[in-house]
Amino acid sequence: MPASSALHTDRYELTMLDAALRDGTADRRCIFEVFGRRLSGGRRFGVVAGTGRLLSLIRDFRFGHEELRFLRDEHIVDAHTIDYLEDYRFTGTISGYREGELYFPGSPVLTVEGTFAEAVILETLVLSVLNHDSAVATAAARMSIAAGDRPLAEMGSRRAGESSAVAAARAAYIAGFTATSNLEAGRTWGIPTMGTAAHAWTLLHDCEEDAFRAQLDALGTDTTLLVDTYDIRHGVETAVRLAGPRLGGVRLDSGDLPTVAAEVRAQLDELGATGTRITVTSDLDEFAIAALAASPVDAYGVGTSVVTGSGVPTAGMVYKLVARQDAAGGWVPVAKASTDKSSRGGRKTAFRVLDAGTATRETIVVSDGFDAVATADEHPDARALQVEMARGGDIDAAHEGTAGVEAARGHHQRVREELPVRGLALSKSDPAIPSVYVDLE
Amino acid sequence: MPASSALHTDRYELTMLDAALRDGTADRRCIFEVFGRRLSGGRRFGVVAGTGRLLSLIRDFRFGHEELRFLRDEHIVDAHTIDYLEDYRFTGTISGYREGELYFPGSPVLTVEGTFAEAVILETLVLSVLNHDSAVATAAARMSIAAGDRPLAEMGSRRAGESSAVAAARAAYIAGFTATSNLEAGRTWGIPTMGTAAHAWTLLHDCEEDAFRAQLDALGTDTTLLVDTYDIRHGVETAVRLAGPRLGGVRLDSGDLPTVAAEVRAQLDELGATGTRITVTSDLDEFAIAALAASPVDAYGVGTSVVTGSGVPTAGMVYKLVARQDAAGGWVPVAKASTDKSSRGGRKTAFRVLDAGTATRETIVVSDGFDAVATADEHPDARALQVEMARGGDIDAAHEGTAGVEAARGHHQRVREELPVRGLALSKSDPAIPSVYVDLE
Repeated sequence: MPASSALHTDRYELTMLDAALRDGTADRRCIFEVFGRRLSGGRRFGVVAGTGRLLSLIRDFRFGHEELRFLRDEHIVDAHTIDYLEDYRFTGTISGYREGELYFPGSPVLTVEGTFAEAVILETLVLSVLNHDSAVATAAARMSIAAGDRPLAEMGSRRAGESSAVAAARAAYIAGFTATSNLEAGRTWGIPTMGTAAHAWTLLHDCEEDAFRAQLDALGTDTTLLVDTYDIRHGVETAVRLAGPRLGGVRLDSGDLPTVAAEVRAQLDELGATGTRITVTSDLDEFAIAALAASPVDAYGVGTSVVTGSGVPTAGMVYKLVARQDAAGGWVPVAKASTDKSSRGGRKTAFRVLDAGTATRETIVVSDGFDAVATADEHPDARALQVEMARGGDIDAAHEGTAGVEAARGHHQRVREELPVRGLALSKSDPAIPSVYVDLE
Repeated sequence: MPASSALHTDRYELTMLDAALRDGTADRRCIFEVFGRRLSGGRRFGVVAGTGRLLSLIRDFRFGHEELRFLRDEHIVDAHTIDYLEDYRFTGTISGYREGELYFPGSPVLTVEGTFAEAVILETLVLSVLNHDSAVATAAARMSIAAGDRPLAEMGSRRAGESSAVAAARAAYIAGFTATSNLEAGRTWGIPTMGTAAHAWTLLHDCEEDAFRAQLDALGTDTTLLVDTYDIRHGVETAVRLAGPRLGGVRLDSGDLPTVAAEVRAQLDELGATGTRITVTSDLDEFAIAALAASPVDAYGVGTSVVTGSGVPTAGMVYKLVARQDAAGGWVPVAKASTDKSSRGGRKTAFRVLDAGTATRETIVVSDGFDAVATADEHPDARALQVEMARGGDIDAAHEGTAGVEAARGHHQRVREELPVRGLALSKSDPAIPSVYVDLE
């Protein structure tokens, strides 16, 4: 994978840049806004994720010799544009919702302000990161709500592209998962990693007993044994016979889990292994987790459904020009006018209005392009949702790296507490709170 | 993104390696097989994709100082295992379906043979790549069938993780797409790139006419103008007035496309722009494309649906130990026995049986672990599906890079011709041909 993020870009962005450098509009100051028109899949809230790693990718968004050679050889842009790109570095301002924050239809999740030239070419990278990571985080938050206090591990790397898998582990952790199986996510983002053995481990050995014994020798009695390769009842019996009643845990990866979990719990208790934990991992999603709430399950492992957004694999956010300066330097709010994809022009300032700590609405104040004067002071029961993340192109490092991940995870836990009870339900519905636009006179 | 692919690995693989190095089973020769138990989403066929880039990633699967330090510091494996990983290089054999090949339930898409130690740790990387890319390719093939001879461009990068977007463009191209908007896919994989302008281009300007004029000046009359920012009828009129009847194309990104396309075609013809092409790009999937077959549309651009597998975002393939040597060196076929996830142990050799050039079944010959004697010679109307891709760890470079992509695309076009007519339909159904297991005595 190349080191530069600069070609994670749709060709039309460079084509527009090329044309804008010719006709003199490249330097017009612009405000691009990231928002979702709706919450896909009847979700009651969305979770913003990806911001921290996006900011780092924007810092790396530089056109080196290899990138420029490709653009030149393929005649994608002309020589004047090559010169511009050679010196390219984003110098504008970025503000947005903190990573881990909830969002609703129309929430101005990220605002990028700069010249048309410098801002238009970030569209694809911005959306790739935020749409993927937010889709995963939104699904993960629902699973985390369903799991309650039980530990919840992400183990879906094999069901996602190899790099997206790392980002998915990160997004799931921010939204409440407790660990991941993905080692790269552990290294890059400091997320706790977990995992013991697959069916291949048992099948490698001449019998299940050999496999369990070898695992116990290597990892100690506190390990988790996978007991469903052949016959679960026999597997549990062998496990406790070898490990003793202090066996750490057993894992179940098949069968009707409520039934099997109850049977295994009864068997473990009978054998005196009352402290042995039961982890379940078979094709779980938020609904299956919720259905296991009354079952004697101690931990969940989730694969496919979390990394694919549990039916909503992309958040569907868009990156739209909402205001620009005209030739005289005044701001002009702009928006597409077609009926089925219309959006609101103008700069947005967003607040979550609270009543005794519970969110009641998303207020989105619309101004022309000038800095909105709307402040949290004028909305005493409201929380301002946007923070500045870059100014003059300098990115606030607090959002990046492992510290950024921990901050986002903490922020998500706090703001999720603000959701009204109806926001916690898993069924399809309208958003938990309405989005209300207020025009600033 | 780190250069080594070695930590795109689930922790349990290294835990098993650790335990296997202790108990002496690490050196047992094993056969791991990649297959899908079913075709998710009622698909009639699957398309294998990702193989070429997977082989390169396996070559790069090495544990450098940084990777080893992480594993040591986090106490994921012991010192003995660190020593093993320091020298790790896959030395086994890989065979499998050519990239672009069709697959069906049980098809042995990839077979990895080596010691348990060297093969078990590739599981996550193998599945991440094949599951993602095959899901995209399968959806893309259905769209390509629906589009017929009309050009079909992939433009969904913004709806996929930034690296998966590049892989998705590659997979879509292999399965019949003609171009991509993603520049990194153009650079890395040699895929033709396309794209002209977004709504932001029109909104940047003081009026639509200014925007069109600037684009025509920069890109010439043959460019494609996006005409639906304000009013489509007015947009088309402006476009032809400025460009003349030789205008290359117009793009429509909203509205009821069959209706709008017919109106725009009539208007263009009225204006004398009879050769001006109409490209449509609004939330298309295979069904929407099929519904436009009778409409005057010249080209399609597809975003979200292709990069997310059009409802099936992962192919759901698994990587299972199917045979291993015992302590005496004999082969033992192995398989998990639980009821809902059972699979067939033993080495598989697969053939597509044809009748007058049309596929009639997938024959999967099952042997114990020894090289199957089943050959295509004994199946004169059958095509052998597996080719050797690595031996002694040396990867056949023919599958890699841009040449590998072109070969895969060509292969896909050829084998798709073998599908029976019922395999081309888009509705949910059983697989187009049955998978038949034959036990080799």
